[in-house]
Amino acid sequence: MEGGVDHLAFERNKAQFDVDDMKIIWAGSRSEFELSDRISRLVASDPAFRKDDRTTLGRKDLFKNTLRKTAYAWKRILELRLNEKEAAKLRSFVDEPAFTDLHWGMFVPAIKGQGTDEQQQKWLPLAYKMQIIGCYAQTELGHGSNVQGLETTATFDPKTDEFVIHSPTLTSSKWWPGGLGKISTHAVVYARLITDGQEQGVHGFIVQLRSLDDHLPLPGITVGDIGMKFGSGAYNTMDNGVLRFDHVRIPRNQMLMRVSQVTREGKYVQSNVPRQLVYGTMVYVRQAIVSDASIALSRAVCIATRYSAVRRQFGSHNGGLESQVIDYKTQQARLFPLLASTYAFRFVSEWLSWLYTDVTQRLQAGDFSTLPEAHACTAGLKSLTTSIAADGIEECRKLCGGHGYLNSSGLPELFAVYVPACTYEGDNTVLLLQVARHLVKTISQLGSGNKPGGTTAYLARVEQLMQYHSDVKKAEDWLKPNVVVAAFEARAARMSVACAQNLSKFTNPEEGFQELTADLVEAATAHCQLIIVSKFIDKLQKDIPGKGVKQQLEVLCSIYALSLLHKHLGDFLSAGCINPLQGSLANEQLRSLYSQVRPNAIALVDAFNYTDHYLGSVLGRYDGNVYPKLYEEAWKDPLNDSVIPDGFHQYVQPILKQQLRNARL
Amino acid sequence: MEGGVDHLAFERNKAQFDVDDMKIIWAGSRSEFELSDRISRLVASDPAFRKDDRTTLGRKDLFKNTLRKTAYAWKRILELRLNEKEAAKLRSFVDEPAFTDLHWGMFVPAIKGQGTDEQQQKWLPLAYKMQIIGCYAQTELGHGSNVQGLETTATFDPKTDEFVIHSPTLTSSKWWPGGLGKISTHAVVYARLITDGQEQGVHGFIVQLRSLDDHLPLPGITVGDIGMKFGSGAYNTMDNGVLRFDHVRIPRNQMLMRVSQVTREGKYVQSNVPRQLVYGTMVYVRQAIVSDASIALSRAVCIATRYSAVRRQFGSHNGGLESQVIDYKTQQARLFPLLASTYAFRFVSEWLSWLYTDVTQRLQAGDFSTLPEAHACTAGLKSLTTSIAADGIEECRKLCGGHGYLNSSGLPELFAVYVPACTYEGDNTVLLLQVARHLVKTISQLGSGNKPGGTTAYLARVEQLMQYHSDVKKAEDWLKPNVVVAAFEARAARMSVACAQNLSKFTNPEEGFQELTADLVEAATAHCQLIIVSKFIDKLQKDIPGKGVKQQLEVLCSIYALSLLHKHLGDFLSAGCINPLQGSLANEQLRSLYSQVRPNAIALVDAFNYTDHYLGSVLGRYDGNVYPKLYEEAWKDPLNDSVIPDGFHQYVQPILKQQLRNARL
Repeated sequence: MEGGVDHLAFERNKAQFDVDDMKIIWAGSRSEFELSDRISRLVASDPAFRKDDRTTLGRKDLFKNTLRKTAYAWKRILELRLNEKEAAKLRSFVDEPAFTDLHWGMFVPAIKGQGTDEQQQKWLPLAYKMQIIGCYAQTELGHGSNVQGLETTATFDPKTDEFVIHSPTLTSSKWWPGGLGKISTHAVVYARLITDGQEQGVHGFIVQLRSLDDHLPLPGITVGDIGMKFGSGAYNTMDNGVLRFDHVRIPRNQMLMRVSQVTREGKYVQSNVPRQLVYGTMVYVRQAIVSDASIALSRAVCIATRYSAVRRQFGSHNGGLESQVIDYKTQQARLFPLLASTYAFRFVSEWLSWLYTDVTQRLQAGDFSTLPEAHACTAGLKSLTTSIAADGIEECRKLCGGHGYLNSSGLPELFAVYVPACTYEGDNTVLLLQVARHLVKTISQLGSGNKPGGTTAYLARVEQLMQYHSDVKKAEDWLKPNVVVAAFEARAARMSVACAQNLSKFTNPEEGFQELTADLVEAATAHCQLIIVSKFIDKLQKDIPGKGVKQQLEVLCSIYALSLLHKHLGDFLSAGCINPLQGSLANEQLRSLYSQVRPNAIALVDAFNYTDHYLGSVLGRYDGNVYPKLYEEAWKDPLNDSVIPDGFHQYVQPILKQQLRNARL
Repeated sequence: MEGGVDHLAFERNKAQFDVDDMKIIWAGSRSEFELSDRISRLVASDPAFRKDDRTTLGRKDLFKNTLRKTAYAWKRILELRLNEKEAAKLRSFVDEPAFTDLHWGMFVPAIKGQGTDEQQQKWLPLAYKMQIIGCYAQTELGHGSNVQGLETTATFDPKTDEFVIHSPTLTSSKWWPGGLGKISTHAVVYARLITDGQEQGVHGFIVQLRSLDDHLPLPGITVGDIGMKFGSGAYNTMDNGVLRFDHVRIPRNQMLMRVSQVTREGKYVQSNVPRQLVYGTMVYVRQAIVSDASIALSRAVCIATRYSAVRRQFGSHNGGLESQVIDYKTQQARLFPLLASTYAFRFVSEWLSWLYTDVTQRLQAGDFSTLPEAHACTAGLKSLTTSIAADGIEECRKLCGGHGYLNSSGLPELFAVYVPACTYEGDNTVLLLQVARHLVKTISQLGSGNKPGGTTAYLARVEQLMQYHSDVKKAEDWLKPNVVVAAFEARAARMSVACAQNLSKFTNPEEGFQELTADLVEAATAHCQLIIVSKFIDKLQKDIPGKGVKQQLEVLCSIYALSLLHKHLGDFLSAGCINPLQGSLANEQLRSLYSQVRPNAIALVDAFNYTDHYLGSVLGRYDGNVYPKLYEEAWKDPLNDSVIPDGFHQYVQPILKQQLRNARL
């Protein structure tokens, strides 16, 4: 709360739980809460991090402004001696994509994960001090999802002990890497390794791109920005780049050689470090994306929920106040499932971070057995949560009516900056097909005594699940966790089995897979939804402080599950695990759950503990003082700098005065 | 085709129908085709209408640029002596929201529809010559959907024979009107009429806002722009405005008095012109919006279809070409239903324009009987088509992978500029509830001998439909129009009846309506989908030139219907009109239909006859020469004006040189 009257105080007083307890649940722990709280306030209170003017700037001014903020953030990180985690938090609360995201998030981890000890000792200190700035140059103009199709080559020249990095075609141009366009001095470049005329697959190489003296591109290197992207502000603060190599030479020791090496003689050899480590990294990156999905969606939900309580429209009786929009069931039926989803995604991301630790420990002990399942499950959850978050942000914008279309609502930029998550780190459809492959394989191996593990464990009970008929008799039965889980398990199992059966009709399995992809995607979705529902229920079994908090989370968990059941009713009915009456009882229960969440809605979004700076939304202001601030915000637009707009005398006056014929246009 | 190699020629040669025939079907008639073809080429060939630099501009430059284009367009319209229809076409192909849209699309029609003959004679000649420029000031900061809640007042002062227009509260500020912010000299202002202390409801008034001499706001008027909106470029070319009145006086004869008048003495009287004429206008405006939905979606579908044929990813065998993305079933299952939807929306908008003519003729003959049904049906179709178009454009963007996120794909701006259609002219949820009200009322009157008409005629057979069970036995049965219509009718009827039955359980019907809104929205959606399916089938019964064309349209019609059936399978199964096996046969048939449309896909989007200028998309280029043009486009970004970006020396160099402590940030 930032001073003045709290227009939402009445709403806050309705809450049936302690919002401070919920803040800690949301943050994961008291220490996580305190860290986020401290750093977000630090950023919010510093005028240097102001961001409300961002969307009015043209590209150059916008970019320059980001460079300033990024330097200032780094300066503050150094002055305050923030540790790595605190520094990352600060960057996330500055809330503006910048070249440092890739330097810290991709360049440094790539060297740590794929570099030898020697390489790490050489490069990491330079990177940690930012004496060099790096990016991650993998995708090309012609290839994104299909990494094995990359065209850039790195040919070993034994004469000089160097690799020659080259872009043989236009489509081999590196395309998209953030930070590449204008800023990075170095890149980890992925290229097809060629030694002694033999292709050895795609590997990473550290390549210097620009001079550390004058920042000019080094010989043989063509580099620039790829142009404007979706939205105003948004990702246009980032210099996503294009890069071409014309036979650029780098020393042999700049190939990242932890997993495989090229010797002085040009021999390609594997080290004893398991290649599976790469998949461990993917699990890590994707669990972070799931966590981000929950955060991005929660911001939009927070804005839409608060504004829905402020906004009144229709329903006035005898000249009294009109109804709050949040009291309309149509609004609730669209908004509350998204509110429930933010909590659901939050808890599944917590579980994924446990999974990552577990996988890592196993890998270190040489146990690769859980990796395929963990890999499939994170791929699927990345896909599902980012798709729902992207669509959900836009839904929240629509729930704010016309005013949601204004940049001052914060929602257009939130959407534009978020949507690439559906495409990067694995296109969402491609990822669901990976999950489907894993499911079909798991089912095909059931007979052979391979016991399915982790999130696929339920498939061991497939025969029982194929026979399952829900015994729901009244609406409240749908509140029982075991009833819900059983229905979701039965539905997911039957969809996977149906796919497996249909696939077996094809003589060429791959052809069958291609033919049935749309069904496979749906089966994978059902499986991933089951995971999220299950992990939400698991969370409720754990130690939740405060009875009110636990009750609210139970309500949200039921809303999450039953709104999915309603949305995918066709699946459940087709699979025969529930009947139409049970489906309509679920819907009836859902309506009653919406009423239960209604008085708690504002407190449930307050629990995210976002500052007004971070939300960046007039509609989502903590104090609900929306209309005066919308009005105030309007006048800041550059068009309002003058009463008569630039161009009026040249282009409008001649129309009005009927003198267009002689006008210079 | 604009010169050079046609990379999609191979695709075009696959088509199994004559694309020129389809162009005429799409346009509606040969003369419509020729008009669009001529005007779109005129615009495309004129460098003054270039628009590819639009998204890089800051607000002021962007707006000034639009003023220039708008003046130039008007100059060309005068020079070429274009008629009203041709001029409107030209503006639509210039493809940039501008103040003239509101002048011609709202201000002039408001005077024509609501002004007396005398008022029309005074104001229309000024407006036609653009000696005055007008906008339409209805929505306020606090009220959009609920027009009856508007707060602006127009109080008659019999002493001076004037109205006093006043904004009594902050929330009564006019907010959103396009053209208001910086340009309009006049507005039709909607305000609560008060005569002799009596409230007489909301009426329209012609109010001058700015001096015709120096363009400064007149005394008592505060006016400005409301700030940036979603996207770069997009609607930021428009000066949506805010307007406050401080006791502004206008002559009595500036109230639009066709339907009701205020006399010299301040008496409020109704004329003998029926009020229902207003609803006739709404039917007109909304049928135009349905037509626009089809066009907006078709542009996105055209881009995604062409790019899906150019893009190759995965599936290379022995080093050969990778697979075209359009050959993946997942891509087809997402893209082809949207392609089918564009045609479906096109045909339903054709039918709506017939409906408007029919309603108008009846109104003139004093027959108001069909108006409620026509009004409900256009409201519902507006809602359904704009929602699907908005989501569909974003889906097409995702179908273009990472490159769809670049502004040069054209898709981000298309989305940003289109989405307000879901909110303006009736929020989509509010509209569906109007449809639901009409359906429930129709059902409640069935017993009383009122025969339902128009699109609700099927409800007369409700008893039969409640018993209906589809007799589909094999996948091909789903190709029969009567089988499809029967299933859609049975589903829609049963959902409406279920709502009516549930409503009857409430003692207070309005309370019941509020409680069940989510179900009512779904019933209304089912009804509107039935209308679209039926009108598509009706179109196929008419004279379609060319056997190939007809066959393709049949395929698209089946795809439209069966993809809806699959998406809403829960409805159909719950209603009991089909069983799970029949649902899965529909899905099987759908897969086979996708294969049938595949070779024709490029020709089906070529039939829209869009110039590369109008599409504004590197990915959607007619010639498919995507990669070189993407590369070329990138270098035009302002950030690439210099090798070292502005801000580098101040903000990045100090980081690299470890001299941040002394830097001025």
